[in-house]
Amino acid sequence: MTTIIPLSQIKQSLTSVNLIDAMEKGFIQFSLGNCVVPPVGELLFDEPKGDTHIKYGYIKKDNYYVIKIASGFYDNPQLGLASSQGLMLLFNQKTGVPEAILLDEGYLTDMRTAAAGALVAKYFAPRQIKGIGIIGTGIQAEQQLMQLHALYESQTADSKKPIKQAVWLWGRNCDNAEILAGKLSQYFDCNIAQSPAQVAANCNLIVTTTPSESALLQASDIQPGTHITAVGSDTEHKQELDSQILALADIVISDSIAQSKSRGEIYRAVCAKAIDARKPVELGTALTNASLQRQNDQQITIADLTGVAVQDIMIASAVYQHHLSNQQA
Amino acid sequence: MTTIIPLSQIKQSLTSVNLIDAMEKGFIQFSLGNCVVPPVGELLFDEPKGDTHIKYGYIKKDNYYVIKIASGFYDNPQLGLASSQGLMLLFNQKTGVPEAILLDEGYLTDMRTAAAGALVAKYFAPRQIKGIGIIGTGIQAEQQLMQLHALYESQTADSKKPIKQAVWLWGRNCDNAEILAGKLSQYFDCNIAQSPAQVAANCNLIVTTTPSESALLQASDIQPGTHITAVGSDTEHKQELDSQILALADIVISDSIAQSKSRGEIYRAVCAKAIDARKPVELGTALTNASLQRQNDQQITIADLTGVAVQDIMIASAVYQHHLSNQQA
Repeated sequence: MTTIIPLSQIKQSLTSVNLIDAMEKGFIQFSLGNCVVPPVGELLFDEPKGDTHIKYGYIKKDNYYVIKIASGFYDNPQLGLASSQGLMLLFNQKTGVPEAILLDEGYLTDMRTAAAGALVAKYFAPRQIKGIGIIGTGIQAEQQLMQLHALYESQTADSKKPIKQAVWLWGRNCDNAEILAGKLSQYFDCNIAQSPAQVAANCNLIVTTTPSESALLQASDIQPGTHITAVGSDTEHKQELDSQILALADIVISDSIAQSKSRGEIYRAVCAKAIDARKPVELGTALTNASLQRQNDQQITIADLTGVAVQDIMIASAVYQHHLSNQQA
Repeated sequence: MTTIIPLSQIKQSLTSVNLIDAMEKGFIQFSLGNCVVPPVGELLFDEPKGDTHIKYGYIKKDNYYVIKIASGFYDNPQLGLASSQGLMLLFNQKTGVPEAILLDEGYLTDMRTAAAGALVAKYFAPRQIKGIGIIGTGIQAEQQLMQLHALYESQTADSKKPIKQAVWLWGRNCDNAEILAGKLSQYFDCNIAQSPAQVAANCNLIVTTTPSESALLQASDIQPGTHITAVGSDTEHKQELDSQILALADIVISDSIAQSKSRGEIYRAVCAKAIDARKPVELGTALTNASLQRQNDQQITIADLTGVAVQDIMIASAVYQHHLSNQQA
């Protein structure tokens, strides 16, 4: 019988799952070529405007294959509904039997994206973080910070109570930045920046999370030793970083070299002839080779995350495995 | 909250749904160009062999969009599982909210395929059926006959007890033909044929339902006035009818002209240069134009059904609507 897992149970399972580790394993398998990930399916709607994406695939010799349906219907808030909707399906890879339906309403996509951000910070951010900068004030801004909090808390010795990390927030809408700062104040020492440049002046770990179609951070803003993770740009038109930042960077990481050929910051920088298409290194490759990671506290490093189906496979499998082991306990 | 409908409830709902009418409406919308049906998604598996197809789309201005996941894992019977697995998902077309999950295990695909066969018989079979021939003895053979039984029963005046229609069955495996004949004996006067040619000699309505890759029926077997519905061939390699039968036919119907360019009997006949690619007429077009339907009892007519996502949209919507109205009653 197919197991139906509602959002409340998904959230509970996630508290026991090490998502950053799961993403690391997934990206490594992806870069080793052990994943089957066909092109994304798409349905577009006009009245009202909406789009649905179907991402699917599997890791060879794994237990499951996964299909994710995720949609954005941008008039939904007028009806009191979230714009993002969707679910994930897990099927047995050996029989095709549908094993589980995760009614996640888009939550797992947010979480796997944020966990990839924390994974990148683990390997590419400088050792000493003087400030964490966040461009954008939406759900992804909040989740990126929560995953970074989980990462840095796990790295602090148990006996040592960690000092609250300084965070600088910038968003187009100042009220939203204040609201986010309020939510996060128990975990971070939050400051509201007046501009993206002020974020860059105070932070050496920056995450950009907006749907912007023009650069918010300029090359002249960036200090030596900064790491930037760009998660907002996932289409051919979206862009948060001046392409010269990628030219300046010592290391440019792509979560999927194949996807970077048609979308995201790397695509924009290659189009602008700011970087050579051979400069980016795939995340899963860099994770298994220390010489492809940050070498010192002066390097500028960039990670461009456009989102890969292997992340969906990993998070859905982890939630279901936890659900199963809880049932047996 | 998403409604989960298990197979037992799906089967119960179907008893109250006029599937042949639903298919007719769907094919007409499809041929009018009112359906959005992107290319089919596919996942292939090697150990063990299996394949999964993702069919999805919507009828414009309808209530839902539908995603169907259907797989075939051919070693499943060794594990006591059906080869076919799958489910259908209905989402609100205006908000993306997942409204219903139909855990149909492939059953709705069988039913919509059989209902399309009966729809074709309604418009293209001769008025007087001297015998119904079935090539193949699997689930689809049985369901095609049950849908034809429903069609002809609905056409018989209430006061008149219908005479059992003669049926001729042929399958590679004689035992399977005997088993099927036993199952259907309460509805039909069943005969086992020694060859496909014997089926053609005794029947003027024939349905072919096998996964054969070489012609089972030859042009010389076919009598004037025969209608043949071919449902088995849905890939570029499968073929049940000698291409000369399509050359001989007065009318050749395709459920989807677009799909007939790459699969099915029509594809094979065009490749063999037996017919011109412009000969086939699309089913939904023919349904709305009596001059494109059978004109007399001497014509030979062929319908090549490769299966179209609009059928999945129609059957899933009909089941869910019935489920909803039952909940409210």
